[in-house]
Amino acid sequence: MTASTPFTIRRLAIIGCGLMGGSVALALKRAGCVDHVVGYSRSAETRETALDMGVIDEAAAGIATAVRDADMVILATPVGALATTLQIIAPHLSVDCILTDVGSTKSDVAAIAKQELGRHAARFVPSHPIAGKEHAGVMHAEADLYDERKVIMTPLPHNALGAIGAVQAMWQICGADVVTMTPQNHDRVFAAVSHLPHLLAFSYINGLANQADSDTFFALAGPGFRDFTRIAGANPDMWRDVFKSNRDAIKEQIDQFRTALDSFEAALDARDGAALEQFVERSRDIRAPWRLNAVIPTRDDLTQQ
Amino acid sequence: MTASTPFTIRRLAIIGCGLMGGSVALALKRAGCVDHVVGYSRSAETRETALDMGVIDEAAAGIATAVRDADMVILATPVGALATTLQIIAPHLSVDCILTDVGSTKSDVAAIAKQELGRHAARFVPSHPIAGKEHAGVMHAEADLYDERKVIMTPLPHNALGAIGAVQAMWQICGADVVTMTPQNHDRVFAAVSHLPHLLAFSYINGLANQADSDTFFALAGPGFRDFTRIAGANPDMWRDVFKSNRDAIKEQIDQFRTALDSFEAALDARDGAALEQFVERSRDIRAPWRLNAVIPTRDDLTQQ
Repeated sequence: MTASTPFTIRRLAIIGCGLMGGSVALALKRAGCVDHVVGYSRSAETRETALDMGVIDEAAAGIATAVRDADMVILATPVGALATTLQIIAPHLSVDCILTDVGSTKSDVAAIAKQELGRHAARFVPSHPIAGKEHAGVMHAEADLYDERKVIMTPLPHNALGAIGAVQAMWQICGADVVTMTPQNHDRVFAAVSHLPHLLAFSYINGLANQADSDTFFALAGPGFRDFTRIAGANPDMWRDVFKSNRDAIKEQIDQFRTALDSFEAALDARDGAALEQFVERSRDIRAPWRLNAVIPTRDDLTQQ
Repeated sequence: MTASTPFTIRRLAIIGCGLMGGSVALALKRAGCVDHVVGYSRSAETRETALDMGVIDEAAAGIATAVRDADMVILATPVGALATTLQIIAPHLSVDCILTDVGSTKSDVAAIAKQELGRHAARFVPSHPIAGKEHAGVMHAEADLYDERKVIMTPLPHNALGAIGAVQAMWQICGADVVTMTPQNHDRVFAAVSHLPHLLAFSYINGLANQADSDTFFALAGPGFRDFTRIAGANPDMWRDVFKSNRDAIKEQIDQFRTALDSFEAALDARDGAALEQFVERSRDIRAPWRLNAVIPTRDDLTQQ
């Protein structure tokens, strides 16, 4: 993108006007890089809110009409709804229409796109923005959600170069730093840094709730609990789909976690103060200096597998 | 405490001038309820900083001189140092001197006080303020650390009524809401809502660090990781002592957690979408509406055991 080739999306379609999709629309509008935004959400109330907030300029009555004549489509529904959505829109996409998504898993998205879109899969470049807020929903959408956040893009061998360039430019205009990886590496890394912590937080809350006096626990919990469990309030539909679609990588990470937990418990059983201290020290030495976005990797070969 | 009996500590001794102890001094000074603060820390640098910041008015050269003539002593070192500290100060306490601590475990503190202080144990009322910050150290101490936070006080059958009243009044002046419990109930509740989450966060970071490409993991981790692992940067000395002293209650909570994790993994293995969704939903329904300090319990019999 240079000054001589301004990047403007004439007609953008957002399928799933929530926090993520809505914030893409607002960020592109902020940059003056989109002429017209059409949105579709299952719920009429969400469509109304998105219109009232100026997130979208037009609410479509159905998915097929939403994408008609669009030159870019953002798929922002839970991953479980993707196959059906693509089946519906495939016959209605104009030949040059470029697609991307915002899903938390990428191998499955790549496979679904190839299966449902056929030759048009060349123009679907999967992506995963590493951004979020405690509360979901279009009412929380904001233009700066992606500012200085990473977006992982997983371009595929069959992707058209122009589609890759357009999706990358779109995210950069939203304020994000784009990192490219293979879908497989993406899914392994995010099983470790996102899916596992969510799973642990969900399990922790369920484990407390299973106990008779859990009300007392929740009443007396402090700021450490608050931060540790923030992600335990996340969307069940979305996370069911993430767990189903990235099962194997997640199971590998559960095993890694269990190994660490077992060695901790062994030190506890042995009343081994030195081992307990070393265990906490290693965690502290890694986590205390860690900062969000401290390192911006930009190469595809970050991980080997 | 009424207007006719103003609560003023003539001489307050802080043993361990860190975030917690330093903030007590600043909070009492803010309220104008302390005339003179003497502080002791092992490190000369910490003593200097505490003096420079006005946290303490006088740095003592040793623990024994710090407590001489004090009418209240705050013990704010890791719990592992408590027995030795009490042995040293016991002969130097004036007869009416009241003591409390800020430790995260209470059964062990109660036992140590009884053993080391003999009859003076009547004036040691253990307490545990539920407050903290990402960074420890006296340089982060502040007068409002305890504002609207809970402080759990675990008065013992042998405690003098005046000592209980004075410690409670002291924390209220610091801005806190005081909740009383037995040491045993305290330790069980905090094994669940504090010790276990720390243990899980430490294990999680160790489990990541055990893997060959952990650098990539840490580089790509996002805001969810940041919040979930904030407590993984905590102090190794303090946490070694907590884990050693509250071992049995913590092991019970590890078992509860493992049961929940196992049932989650069984749903994952069975590709049981409904069960996965239900599991996340239960977590979301509890955690999403949860608020820090939403409930202020004030009775001793909150938990039965």
